[in-house]
Amino acid sequence: MTQLTYRATGVDPTRAERSLAQVRERIARTKTPEVIGDIGAFGGLFASPGKDRVLVATTDGVGTKLEVARLLDRHEVVGTDLVHHCVNDALAMGAEPLFFLDYFSTSRIDPAVFARVVGAMADACAAHGCALLGGETAEMPGMYGPGAYDVAGFLVGMVARDAILRPESVQEGDACIGLPSSGLHTNGYTLARAIVARIAGAQGRDIRDALTTPHPELGGGTLGDALLAPHTSYLRQFRALSSAAHVRSIAHLTGGGWEGNLPRALPAGLGAAIDRSSWEVPAIFRVLAELGTVPELDQWDTWNMGIGLVVMVPSSEAAAALRSVPGAREIGRVEAASGPRRVRWASR
Amino acid sequence: MTQLTYRATGVDPTRAERSLAQVRERIARTKTPEVIGDIGAFGGLFASPGKDRVLVATTDGVGTKLEVARLLDRHEVVGTDLVHHCVNDALAMGAEPLFFLDYFSTSRIDPAVFARVVGAMADACAAHGCALLGGETAEMPGMYGPGAYDVAGFLVGMVARDAILRPESVQEGDACIGLPSSGLHTNGYTLARAIVARIAGAQGRDIRDALTTPHPELGGGTLGDALLAPHTSYLRQFRALSSAAHVRSIAHLTGGGWEGNLPRALPAGLGAAIDRSSWEVPAIFRVLAELGTVPELDQWDTWNMGIGLVVMVPSSEAAAALRSVPGAREIGRVEAASGPRRVRWASR
Repeated sequence: MTQLTYRATGVDPTRAERSLAQVRERIARTKTPEVIGDIGAFGGLFASPGKDRVLVATTDGVGTKLEVARLLDRHEVVGTDLVHHCVNDALAMGAEPLFFLDYFSTSRIDPAVFARVVGAMADACAAHGCALLGGETAEMPGMYGPGAYDVAGFLVGMVARDAILRPESVQEGDACIGLPSSGLHTNGYTLARAIVARIAGAQGRDIRDALTTPHPELGGGTLGDALLAPHTSYLRQFRALSSAAHVRSIAHLTGGGWEGNLPRALPAGLGAAIDRSSWEVPAIFRVLAELGTVPELDQWDTWNMGIGLVVMVPSSEAAAALRSVPGAREIGRVEAASGPRRVRWASR
Repeated sequence: MTQLTYRATGVDPTRAERSLAQVRERIARTKTPEVIGDIGAFGGLFASPGKDRVLVATTDGVGTKLEVARLLDRHEVVGTDLVHHCVNDALAMGAEPLFFLDYFSTSRIDPAVFARVVGAMADACAAHGCALLGGETAEMPGMYGPGAYDVAGFLVGMVARDAILRPESVQEGDACIGLPSSGLHTNGYTLARAIVARIAGAQGRDIRDALTTPHPELGGGTLGDALLAPHTSYLRQFRALSSAAHVRSIAHLTGGGWEGNLPRALPAGLGAAIDRSSWEVPAIFRVLAELGTVPELDQWDTWNMGIGLVVMVPSSEAAAALRSVPGAREIGRVEAASGPRRVRWASR
């Protein structure tokens, strides 16, 4: 029998290292003063904040937006989104990002794709003053289809103990401030892809074609471009809002849409009356809903519909909050709620 | 056209929550005094250690051991291994574990499998005094084959600033103490699986059959049992060693085997002379190597060959170190090294 080597089975232990070498400089640029030592150790070292601080840890993926990015050869957005999603989850607890780690898993590492994903991740970390402290690159032959990969991000941030955002601090009558999203961010792509696949099928086109054809209702843009808009990071707006007003709690509208996320930032017994006429739902949501004849309930329970972050502030501070962040708008009020659904669509 | 709903596309946003509900109690048992608040927030909260501490962050997967566990319906080992692997990476920097997060990704969540994996993860965290602080469960239709899933773990630990293990502190002549592994731990499974697939093919049996047939050279045990032995956690031994001797550095022998890991715990210019007669290579490695006619170089560059952790201590403290941990043995010495390979096989 011929000899079996590790390489012959499809795993090349040096491929991950060679891929990493391509982005080492961009990773090095994420180094902050708290980082101790270099890549290559068994764990990343980061000077602990003081005991007056609380660490906030969060983990996310980017879902099947991955598949759209891959189909259109736009891998950078995967890395950017992973960081932005985690940054937003951390700031929803009141935290500033400290460090980030990633997990990249595929059947066979494509060094060029890896460098684009992890390079963009490093750039997004650097832009947020967040150290890319480590990562794991797994080569698992047979686990993923050709060219497919999955990524997960882990972020640790910190918040002063008395600045933790707590749903319990929200009061009836508080104002809900909405910050615009850039599109679907990283949620509801399985539904979006099913819609694109269906219209492509109905029109006898392939999916890539359906994604790259200019669409009149998207101002001449394509579905692909609209679907691959990067997940907005709200760190700058969060800082501005926190300086201008007393932020009580924040909901990051991700998987599960409005009903799945807004109540997470409210105490039991309270809900929100949201006036959907207070912002314009972006064209991509309307186009997808129409093409897929998606029931209204499903749209709002799946997608963010144009608002990526909802910030609760005392009503007396709503005006100051709105002035601090261009594009922010007051979209509703916190109210008593008793039913199983706590987001109520209301008119002003 | 019929309406498209999110559920119709194969994603059920409540399935992850219902799956999680099954293990909520076991997760709650991992709660340590530093944990603030409950599951359901956008990020997990953990009281920061003081400024005299350094945070150690690490991320890992379990590789294609997943596939063996799945084939033999032994999902618990996946959760256990993920925690143990991360714990070992953290202690290789000198750190005690603080908290853990997981990422679980699959095409369609099987609540029973999820509960077994994440339940075992929670139990392993509890056993290590490590809080399971959060996680992400991703349902990505089409990304994984039926029943397949991937997991990633993320652990943050802490170490006193003056207790960080640093390769630079290792000196020529230091003793290398080896701690026995339970088998392959979580590395080299693609090679192991290729070997099993080959012998199954040669014997006209299916892979499950090849994995579950008692093997004379494994003392009547099966390849499957040997391959699914849990990754050893060395936290208890690490604590005992640290009390008994001055631990200078630690190598966790994972992907890349000996040459891929031992040098990571040594300063430039130094290598190690390892006496392979100082321990008996466990039967599973001999059986796999023989069945696959795996070249010796590949065996040692892929698998741990029976030693999961190598601990460097001053030679004058080797005896004390050995007394502190049953099963530990002195396996070699640190020496000057100049070539590209820094692990030299030597006789006593």
